[in-house]
Amino acid sequence: MGKEFVKSITGMDEDFAQWYTDVVTKAELIDYSSVRGSMIIRPYGYALWENIKDELDNRIKETGHENVYMPLFIPESLLQREKDHIEGFAPEVAWVTHGGDEELQERLCVRPTSEVLFGEHYKNIIHSYRDLPKLYNQWANVVRWEKTTRPFLRTLEFLWQEGHTCHETDEEAHEETVKMLDVYAELCENILAIPVIKGQKTEKEKFAGAKYTYTIESLMHDGKALQSGTSHHLGDGFAKAFGIQFSDREGNLQYVQQTSWGFTTRIIGAMIMVHGDDRGLVIPPKAAPTQLMIVPIAQHKEGVLDFAYGLKDRLAGSFRVGIDASDKKPGWKFNEYEMKGIPLRLEAGPRDIEQNQVIIARRDTGEKVTVSLDELESKIAKLLDEVQNNLFYKALKHREEKTSVALNFEEFSEKLNTNKGFIKAMWCGDQTCEDKIKEETGATSRCIPFEEEKVAAECVCCGKEAEQLIYWARAY
Amino acid sequence: MGKEFVKSITGMDEDFAQWYTDVVTKAELIDYSSVRGSMIIRPYGYALWENIKDELDNRIKETGHENVYMPLFIPESLLQREKDHIEGFAPEVAWVTHGGDEELQERLCVRPTSEVLFGEHYKNIIHSYRDLPKLYNQWANVVRWEKTTRPFLRTLEFLWQEGHTCHETDEEAHEETVKMLDVYAELCENILAIPVIKGQKTEKEKFAGAKYTYTIESLMHDGKALQSGTSHHLGDGFAKAFGIQFSDREGNLQYVQQTSWGFTTRIIGAMIMVHGDDRGLVIPPKAAPTQLMIVPIAQHKEGVLDFAYGLKDRLAGSFRVGIDASDKKPGWKFNEYEMKGIPLRLEAGPRDIEQNQVIIARRDTGEKVTVSLDELESKIAKLLDEVQNNLFYKALKHREEKTSVALNFEEFSEKLNTNKGFIKAMWCGDQTCEDKIKEETGATSRCIPFEEEKVAAECVCCGKEAEQLIYWARAY
Repeated sequence: MGKEFVKSITGMDEDFAQWYTDVVTKAELIDYSSVRGSMIIRPYGYALWENIKDELDNRIKETGHENVYMPLFIPESLLQREKDHIEGFAPEVAWVTHGGDEELQERLCVRPTSEVLFGEHYKNIIHSYRDLPKLYNQWANVVRWEKTTRPFLRTLEFLWQEGHTCHETDEEAHEETVKMLDVYAELCENILAIPVIKGQKTEKEKFAGAKYTYTIESLMHDGKALQSGTSHHLGDGFAKAFGIQFSDREGNLQYVQQTSWGFTTRIIGAMIMVHGDDRGLVIPPKAAPTQLMIVPIAQHKEGVLDFAYGLKDRLAGSFRVGIDASDKKPGWKFNEYEMKGIPLRLEAGPRDIEQNQVIIARRDTGEKVTVSLDELESKIAKLLDEVQNNLFYKALKHREEKTSVALNFEEFSEKLNTNKGFIKAMWCGDQTCEDKIKEETGATSRCIPFEEEKVAAECVCCGKEAEQLIYWARAY
Repeated sequence: MGKEFVKSITGMDEDFAQWYTDVVTKAELIDYSSVRGSMIIRPYGYALWENIKDELDNRIKETGHENVYMPLFIPESLLQREKDHIEGFAPEVAWVTHGGDEELQERLCVRPTSEVLFGEHYKNIIHSYRDLPKLYNQWANVVRWEKTTRPFLRTLEFLWQEGHTCHETDEEAHEETVKMLDVYAELCENILAIPVIKGQKTEKEKFAGAKYTYTIESLMHDGKALQSGTSHHLGDGFAKAFGIQFSDREGNLQYVQQTSWGFTTRIIGAMIMVHGDDRGLVIPPKAAPTQLMIVPIAQHKEGVLDFAYGLKDRLAGSFRVGIDASDKKPGWKFNEYEMKGIPLRLEAGPRDIEQNQVIIARRDTGEKVTVSLDELESKIAKLLDEVQNNLFYKALKHREEKTSVALNFEEFSEKLNTNKGFIKAMWCGDQTCEDKIKEETGATSRCIPFEEEKVAAECVCCGKEAEQLIYWARAY
């Protein structure tokens, strides 16, 4: 194997950040450009995003939502309408000040999120309870002026969907907030094989302008947490700022109750850091652009390529199948598709033709099995299921091993430094304690889990009475 | 029928511009916002775009292209690398000068198109003829700082796909340019029922930085032309500006040959202006978000709603079907779905139940037919085909009636003012004549058609010898 074909990557446990950078570039998910903090999403990365997007878009439509498209730019005065919102976002927006040679009278910000645009539109189109609920979603790019960036995890620009809905009652908005968090959680667990903790953000960590924020939190290989999707009950704050009123069933004028919820290309970063290993990416079969890659062995021998292409045609209706019949050596191809995290590799050579079989290798365990052609489809389907499940349970086991309980501040710091991962600990509800923990340990409150639990009676920080358990972690 | 339900629109022949505005707003395709020159694409408009996008995306993938995503921002220095390109685009770009509170050291333009970003990336990833061709596409929003704007036709921001490819030879790039123009033409004619003229742009009208530009041109109801898709052979201009070189099959270093091609939300404006009428939108069945709308008649009577929903369930697997069982009057519903251009309306009432039939009304001709339930699917399929074909041939007939030949300047002006539409006339090839025609008549050269024709031996403007026939028109 020629040296030019070897793509070596840094070991995960040696330097996790470098490992991540190696994987995203060498698996050809992204490339850098001269645009600071932005990334080029390459064909393989974008195909992955398209799969995730299609899965989510189907779920968004099945739950009754409609897609729309809002403008990219927001006039400064519009962004300022909701006070908490502008305070939260102003420090991180990009400002357009000139169009062509002309200086603009009012600056335009490049949308960091679109609550205010939806607010203005909803005021125009909602008049009566008959107009409700309004269940809108948009797929878009957004920009946040981040200082330190990393492909997928934190970039100046990212791709996402943002749902924005209006309801008659607080209760209905609450149900929507829960429903969409459940959609995100189901997608993460069933398609991306990423186990998540569902819960509520603290006041400090909630979305700027929301009544409350629900979140799903996942845990990466290195023990850091990653916020994987959020769903906000906005109450009537934006409705009041934008005057979105309707006559209710009794003929009284009311403000609508709103929600918003978002899911981003960030999840690709989570998928990499949850499942990847020292040989590169590992992609769960349900999300994989290619589920099975056929590599002909001794392809110069008579009949091998015909056999391999025959298999591809046979399988293409049932699975996402690729074939590499290039003149590169099989060993190079094995490395390449392992780096790219393709769930199954199918090897087919002269001996296999003779014996009416193929060899299938699993990316997740490295296991190789011989499969008779008579049961090829059923065996591949079974293997793909097994890979999908194995990835999920492996990640769940890892999260459980990396979740500790802390009863006091010393224990908190010690477990955070040794075991890393999530720390479950009680909290009095006072932001001073939350701030102190962040400042002294680097851990932030990830969420108050929906599955209530009580591991002690006192706050892990101040020792005062505490009712709430929090998942804490250092986070991306 | 209550007055509040009536959505009246301006007559097409009374004030075509106002008719257009009425249609896009009252059919709920778009809404305005406080963002100058931008539009909100509402659910019905976006569903239409999603259908067009899916059709085109399938064709782009079937022809071997891969989707990628490039950054939204372009540093000023990068945009300036290709001289003709920056000259063409600089007057119409939006500039970001601040990120948060900080003034940027280098301004960033919001992409008006992405040739330079692809150029930089291609330099990184192309080294050998083995890396070619590279066939990339992206779906994105772009911004052009237009002074006068109109929904879909000319907006500050629009949605599009932009293909960017690299090839070994000039000939291959030429084939790609032709192939993608053909894809656009086929989509316009077969899905959107818009007949197009294929041809080449003059030097004056070609894309900034291209070797040559191919275009498809269509004709609107009011006799103005609309450029409906363009495909550019870029030659090696960008390759030289960005240093995109490869070692060829003989081991020599060569510059790649490139193409780019784009298709935008503008086509929705074309669809409206080609097929619409005084009752509103008319959408070709293959592009329609809803192909058939069921309107129950006397729905308070026993069995009617069950019957109507039964039909919906029966048809939903074969067609895109809607049902309106709201308490609005049938007359209101008829108007509403005519305004929205839904190809077929199915009326189902007590008499129909008795007689095992339904009434189907065509949006394009107003014709009503009684259809037995025994042949419902086949009859609907046939009607949808007929509507699709009728729209295409009606548009083709209109274009033919609005296409004149002019042999001299007086005839040119006269026919342009009376018959409007396309003028076919000879041109000497001199830009002075092209400029003069534009200045004195408002018509621009739309294209030199691929189907060559010679209607005279002299230039329509200067009377000198002329070889090329041009389609001229006033245009959107």
